[in-house]
This record gives sequence, C-alpha cells and structure tokens, in this order.
Amino acid sequence: MSNDRVEAFSDGVFAIILTLLILELRVPEIPDHSSLSWYASAMAPLVPKAITFVLTFVLICIHWVGHHYFFRQLQPVTIGFAWLNNLFLLWICFMPFPTALLGDHPTDQFPILLYAVNQLLAALTFFAFRSYASRNQLFADNAAVKALGPRHSLPAIIMFLLSILFAFINVYLSLACFFVVPLLYFVPTMLEKKIK
Amino acid sequence: MSNDRVEAFSDGVFAIILTLLILELRVPEIPDHSSLSWYASAMAPLVPKAITFVLTFVLICIHWVGHHYFFRQLQPVTIGFAWLNNLFLLWICFMPFPTALLGDHPTDQFPILLYAVNQLLAALTFFAFRSYASRNQLFADNAAVKALGPRHSLPAIIMFLLSILFAFINVYLSLACFFVVPLLYFVPTMLEKKIK
Amino acid sequence: MSNDRVEAFSDGVFAIILTLLILELRVPEIPDHSSLSWYASAMAPLVPKAITFVLTFVLICIHWVGHHYFFRQLQPVTIGFAWLNNLFLLWICFMPFPTALLGDHPTDQFPILLYAVNQLLAALTFFAFRSYASRNQLFADNAAVKALGPRHSLPAIIMFLLSILFAFINVYLSLACFFVVPLLYFVPTMLEKKIK
Amino acid sequence: MSNDRVEAFSDGVFAIILTLLILELRVPEIPDHSSLSWYASAMAPLVPKAITFVLTFVLICIHWVGHHYFFRQLQPVTIGFAWLNNLFLLWICFMPFPTALLGDHPTDQFPILLYAVNQLLAALTFFAFRSYASRNQLFADNAAVKALGPRHSLPAIIMFLLSILFAFINVYLSLACFFVVPLLYFVPTMLEKKIK
Repeated sequence: MSNDRVEAFSDGVFAIILTLLILELRVPEIPDHSSLSWYASAMAPLVPKAITFVLTFVLICIHWVGHHYFFRQLQPVTIGFAWLNNLFLLWICFMPFPTALLGDHPTDQFPILLYAVNQLLAALTFFAFRSYASRNQLFADNAAVKALGPRHSLPAIIMFLLSILFAFINVYLSLACFFVVPLLYFVPTMLEKKIK
Repeated sequence: MSNDRVEAFSDGVFAIILTLLILELRVPEIPDHSSLSWYASAMAPLVPKAITFVLTFVLICIHWVGHHYFFRQLQPVTIGFAWLNNLFLLWICFMPFPTALLGDHPTDQFPILLYAVNQLLAALTFFAFRSYASRNQLFADNAAVKALGPRHSLPAIIMFLLSILFAFINVYLSLACFFVVPLLYFVPTMLEKKIK
Repeated sequence: MSNDRVEAFSDGVFAIILTLLILELRVPEIPDHSSLSWYASAMAPLVPKAITFVLTFVLICIHWVGHHYFFRQLQPVTIGFAWLNNLFLLWICFMPFPTALLGDHPTDQFPILLYAVNQLLAALTFFAFRSYASRNQLFADNAAVKALGPRHSLPAIIMFLLSILFAFINVYLSLACFFVVPLLYFVPTMLEKKIK
Repeated sequence: MSNDRVEAFSDGVFAIILTLLILELRVPEIPDHSSLSWYASAMAPLVPKAITFVLTFVLICIHWVGHHYFFRQLQPVTIGFAWLNNLFLLWICFMPFPTALLGDHPTDQFPILLYAVNQLLAALTFFAFRSYASRNQLFADNAAVKALGPRHSLPAIIMFLLSILFAFINVYLSLACFFVVPLLYFVPTMLEKKIK
C-alpha cells in the first residue's frame, strides 16, 4: 500500500476528531444583556468539560506526532499493517464519547474507567505497530528503530493501567495519572534541550 | 483527471464518515455520583448501537482498503469514472442514516432492509468500477487486474442480497449475513497466511 | 501560492460539506417493533429532504469536478485568486442551510429564493475564476482555455436566475430549474459519447 | 518532520472548522406555506449570527493564507515547531464556541471578551511561529523573511488587545475592532495594487 494515502487518511481522521472534540462544548442558554458574573456562573460547569477536551486534544496530538514519526521510518506497509492502523483509528474515533462522559462527571468511576480503557487500547495498538513492523521487516533502517525507542507508548500504557487500578481506590489518583501522561511526554524532551 | 486528487477527495469523505459514525453515540443523561451499576444500565441501550457502528466502521474500512488497491492499478481516470466514484461516495455518505436506524431498532424489518440496500448499492457500484475500468482500458497493467480478483465486492453483493431475502423470513438471518461479510473478507486472508 | 495546498484545502471543504449534507437527515423517533408500513409513513416526510440533499450533493460534485479541471490548467495562483477561491468556498459552506430549509418546505417561496441565490453566487464566483485567471495570465496554456469552454458555469447562472424570477410566478417552475442544471451538465456529455 | 504532513493536517483542521462554523446556523421551525415576510421575521435573529460566522470565516481564512505562506519559507520543521502548530490549531478549534456565543449575544461583554481573547491567543501563537523559526534557523532563505514582514499578526494583536480594553468602556468599539482586522489585511494589498 502507498504510505502516503494511509497517512493522509489517518490525518483526516485525526483532524476531524480534534475539531469535533471542542465542538462538543455547547453554548448554554443565557438571557440577553447578562452581566459578566452571570456569564461566569453559566460557564462554570463548562470548565471541567473544557479541561477534559484539552487533555484529549493533547493526547491525540501526541499520537499524531508519534504516528507521523513512526510512518516516516517505514517502507511501504502491508495490508495487515493498514488494518492495524484502522483499528488504531477506531480507538481514536471513539475518544470523544468517554471524553464527553468524563467532562460531565469528572469524579465518577465509570467515566474514568471508560476513558482509561479507551486510551489504553489506543496506546497498546500503537505499541503493536512497532512489534508488527519489526516482525515483518517494515522498517526502512534498523538503526532508526532503536533511536526511536519505546518512549511514546510504554509510559502511556503503564499510566493508563495504573489509572484503571486507582479507579477502584481513589478516583483523584486516576485523574492524576491522566495528566501525568502528557507530562511524561513533554518534560523529558524539555530537560534534554536544557542540558544541550 | 489526476488520480491523486480523486483519491484525496474520496479519503476525505471516508475519514469524515468514519469519524461521524462513532460521534452519533450520544452521551446519555446520568445523575452525578452514580454507581457503576447505574452507569452500566444507562449504557446498556447503547450496546446494540455501538455494535452497529463498529460493523459499519469495518465495512467502510474494507471499502477504503479496496478503493486504495483499486486506484493504484489505474491510469489517470476519465471524468466518467470520477462520476462513478461520486456515486459510490453518495452511498458511503448515506451509511450513517441506516446505521443509526438499525442501532435503534436492530430487529425491525425496515432498518435491516434499508441497511442492506444501502450496502448492496455501494458494493454494486464498487463492482461497476471494475467493469467500467476494463471496458475503458483504465488499468495500467492487465496482469494486475486478474491478480486482484473479484474477491472484494462479489461476496458482499451476494450476502447483502441474501440479507434482503431473509428480512422477509427471519431478521436474525439477515443480521447474521451482515456480520458474515467482514468474516468472508478477513478469514481467507488469514488462512492464506497460515498456509504460507 | 502552491496550487496543491489550495486544492487540498478546497477538497477538504468539499468532502466535509458533502458528508454533512446527508447527515442532516435525522433519524425519526419510531416505536420498537413497528411494521414496515409504519416505518414507511414515518419516513415519508424525509423523502423531499433526501431529494433536496441528493440535488445539492450532485451540484457540489459538479463544482468539485469543474474545480479540479480548472485548477489543472493553472500556473501557481496568486494570493488574489486564493481569496476568490475562499469566497467560493464560503458559498459552498453555506449550502447546507438553504438545502435543509428547502427540504423542510419544498414549495415555499423563501427557501427557493435562498437556495437559488446561494447557488447563483457560487456559479458567479466560479465564472469569476475564469475571468480573473485570463486577466492575470494564470493559465498554463491558452489553447486549453478555449477547449474548456464556459459550459460549466454559464448554464447554471442562467437557470438559477430563471428560478429566482419563477419564484414570483410559480414555485414549481423554480424547482424544475434546479433539476435542469444537472441535466444540462450530464446530457450533452452523454450525447457526445453516443455520437463518437 | 515532513512539512507536507504538518500542512495537510493543519489544512484538515482549517477546512473542518470553516465548514462547521456555518453549519451552526440552525434552521428555525417555520410553519409550512409561510409568507415571505413571515420567513423574513423568522430569519431576522439569524442575521447577527450569520455576520459573526462570516467574520470568523474571514479571520480563519486570513490565518490559513498566512500559514500557507509561512510554511513555504521553512525548511523541515522540528518537533517543537509541530507542537507550536498544534497549539495554534487548538485556538482555531476553539473559535466556533465564542463565535456562537457572540452570535447569540452580540452586545454583551463576556462574549466579546471571550472572542477577543481567543483571537488574540491565535494571533500571538502565529507571531511566536516567526520568533521560533528565526531562533531555530528554520527559514530556508533569510531574505524572504524580511520580505514577509510582520504584517499578518501584529495588527491583529493590537486590534484584539484594544477590543479587550474597549469591552470595559463601550462594546460597540470592541465590535468595530473585530471588523477592522480584516480591513487592515485587505485594504493595504488593494492600495498597493492600485498604485502599481
């Protein structure tokens, strides 16, 4: 298969999901000529929703950047790989649902579990990309593979597994895990830059 | 016409339909601080919907992979072929409607018939791609055409025809036909791999 | 500007509008286990909507094919042309609104006028592409320009002007004009083929 | 990273946001066979919404054209730049929300402030593109950078800052600022052309 078309198709799905995520923020009914404080109180319930949407936005962008880097290392992919990619896109497409549910009920067990499982499945499928690609010799250059390292998916897999466990102990710990994933992604890169 | 642009345009439609399919799963109203079992019962009616969406997701992905393979065999297509492709995209664009209807009423005759007719028209149009392309010598390489075989659309055409018939006898048989289509697509490929 | 990116951007808009058009068909509330005839009567009000959506789908596809052909004749376009293209995309983006209104009230004067004006503005902007491109020597090859001919936009401009006039005489004449536009596009091409 | 894919991904987001903006115009409930004047009065509340949507449409198109020009000057971008671009896309994705709110309540303080802050953040991020790119030597050609000039983002930054201040004095001044931004963009280009 031509990687260009697989990438373009995936980018389409990524772009649409990102866009629609934020569109889920519905404008509340507010009487005309309301004061700033009235607006503030009408908007307050949207704040947890907005935070959840930004979290998912960032997690999807992390996947997009990883997807981009990963595909650049590959020779033309097989049909099997394209289907693995389709499975990955299914998890991405599903994300707005647990995101909206978590935004509505940020401290309930079920939304947290659903969100964590959805993210875990996406991270596991991304991890499977790597194994599939090495098993089927899809990498254009083996040196590049090692340089790439497993940084992208492994920490996410661990954190989302932890958040599932924590959901049965203390939901705030689970929520903390969600926010640790982007930190684990950004902080090392920033530290590296500082050291250089 | 430039095949690149026809493909990019089709990929756009494919990506948007896939994404919007899953977005049709609306988050139900649930009181805050509900228990896991409360959530489970609130989510239960969504399960047939989710299954129907995943089914359509897979059927559209099958079309996308087939479309991709097919266009790679072609020389620059004529305007007539572009219009045949537009007709195919019309059926694809229509799919969320019967999918949602079937998700709401999975054992009713009308949604099953509508779903089957929609899928049948898409499969027939895909089949027409092949005839049109051979009649107008659009294939870059005639050997490739035979290798491609009619595996993609013929089984789907037969199964959706059967499901229309079965809708007047027993709706569960029709539903079974729907799920056989992806099996007929995946199982032979897997068996081939095992044998090798 | 790079024509590739202008085309890709326009294709994105075309693909999304086509997809969302059909999604406007909302699934009606139907009690479970309804008979075929019950469904038929519940679906009946959707028929004019579906016809209107297919009409707009076809009209947008005509624009897409024309846009594709047109851009292939061009050298890298100027920023002014990109803005003319953005104006064209604005009319395209607006189309779902009059389409939905016409689908709800197919024989009312206002929806017919709004639909016709929207389509007229799109066709006029497409026509302006040609004048702008010749005035600014954007065509890669002047021979091609004549071969292209004004077939695409002129008949549409005339028919939509007529439909605006007819809206004040007899709305059915206006509706007829809408359906004549695709016929004027398809029939000549088919006749040409027959003669050859 | 490959600039092609970053651009294609951004174009996807731009195209979807533009399309969905206009779709937010919901068709009002109107009894069948209403007169033109009835329709006119039913449509009247949509006029401020439509104007706001067109304003945001134009502002996003200005960003798109600027984004296009800017990326053409760049060598392959770093991962840091891709994340700056993701941040920019976050502001773009958020725009439908304040646009809808402003369309509902065009003379209220809160919607005006939210709209101005959203636009300001987008313009500041675009401005940061330039600084980041010069600091990291991402420009392919240094001469081009000066020619490009800061015309795109600086006037927008100033106008949106002013509109935030004016929101506490007179909301109509703020609204005027919003409409001055596209004028500041279009008028100089037109004058230049006239002089030539």
